Amino acid sequence: MGGMNFCSNCGAAVERRIPPGDDRPRYVCGSCETIHYQNPLLVVGTVPTFAGKVLLCRRAIEPRLGYWTLPAGFMENGETLLAGALRESWEEARARLSGEALYRLFDLPHVEQVYVFFRGHLIGGRHAPGPESSETALFSEEEIPWNELAFPVMFDVLKGFFEDRRRGAFPVTVGGLGISPADFWQRTRRAE
Amino acid sequence: MGGMNFCSNCGAAVERRIPPGDDRPRYVCGSCETIHYQNPLLVVGTVPTFAGKVLLCRRAIEPRLGYWTLPAGFMENGETLLAGALRESWEEARARLSGEALYRLFDLPHVEQVYVFFRGHLIGGRHAPGPESSETALFSEEEIPWNELAFPVMFDVLKGFFEDRRRGAFPVTVGGLGISPADFWQRTRRAE
Repeated sequence: MGGMNFCSNCGAAVERRIPPGDDRPRYVCGSCETIHYQNPLLVVGTVPTFAGKVLLCRRAIEPRLGYWTLPAGFMENGETLLAGALRESWEEARARLSGEALYRLFDLPHVEQVYVFFRGHLIGGRHAPGPESSETALFSEEEIPWNELAFPVMFDVLKGFFEDRRRGAFPVTVGGLGISPADFWQRTRRAE
Repeated sequence: MGGMNFCSNCGAAVERRIPPGDDRPRYVCGSCETIHYQNPLLVVGTVPTFAGKVLLCRRAIEPRLGYWTLPAGFMENGETLLAGALRESWEEARARLSGEALYRLFDLPHVEQVYVFFRGHLIGGRHAPGPESSETALFSEEEIPWNELAFPVMFDVLKGFFEDRRRGAFPVTVGGLGISPADFWQRTRRAE
């Protein structure tokens, strides 16, 4: 979350201090006393599968332009987790899913985000790039561009998905990243 | 989420409009062009159990002062889902848990929130009211104050928990409220 200079309610300057009864610093308005809380963001996405392959999108926007990702994005007000995940799947990959199931939650406290992934069947195997993607494609485990993935969380959810498929069980789990961000960035550093 | 009048970055007035490339209205600064996104909040909580009973807290604060709730509250930046749920359990009920497991996700799009509950064993059966609770107590299914619960989501998670326990399985699920908010508020209306 970014910093804050002015109160979004009254326009006066905010200060950083611990409000009475609280135990951590917040942005507080020096004039109208509004406390501006900042909280983690939810990112919702899917693991769309067809004929044993997983659908990925190549990013047409920064950050990580040109790298591959599962369809995912910020959850919007007024929608459910699943509705948001399906919306992102359509927006980024023109993908429609069936048989959706809650799959995996990831804590990313260092970037103040929580990811929630659903898995599902890609209807008709149909997909196409939306405005934020330059390309969409289905990949088997061997074909996944492991060194060209956009974000560490995508590496983890894909690794986990293929392991789960070998075991034939897809438990819903929550946890942090398995791969360290440093290892991931090293692995996916583009050759110049 | 509340409305917004001024840009938190530069202090100029914001307007409500659809930014280029977007498909929904946002608060956009008329001066520095910052787009102020507003997104759902995560609420994290626990179902602490001891000797077949569930721990509830009686709220000492508004809203719903005097009504009973599971320990839960807004997730903070920098923490994981579980860390937040355990922090709330300590803050509201001086409860320490062991054997924690992800349990239930609830979509509350009408209030722009997502709840994530963990279940766990209440260590030593020990509990006491924190600053936001007037009382804490362990309840069997028959003893739960069903008509004095604070929020519809608490009704649903408790109903589901006792059903799961009868079946001996606690699948992780996601969904909306089972009880309609209108039915819930009618049910828990205090006799005057």
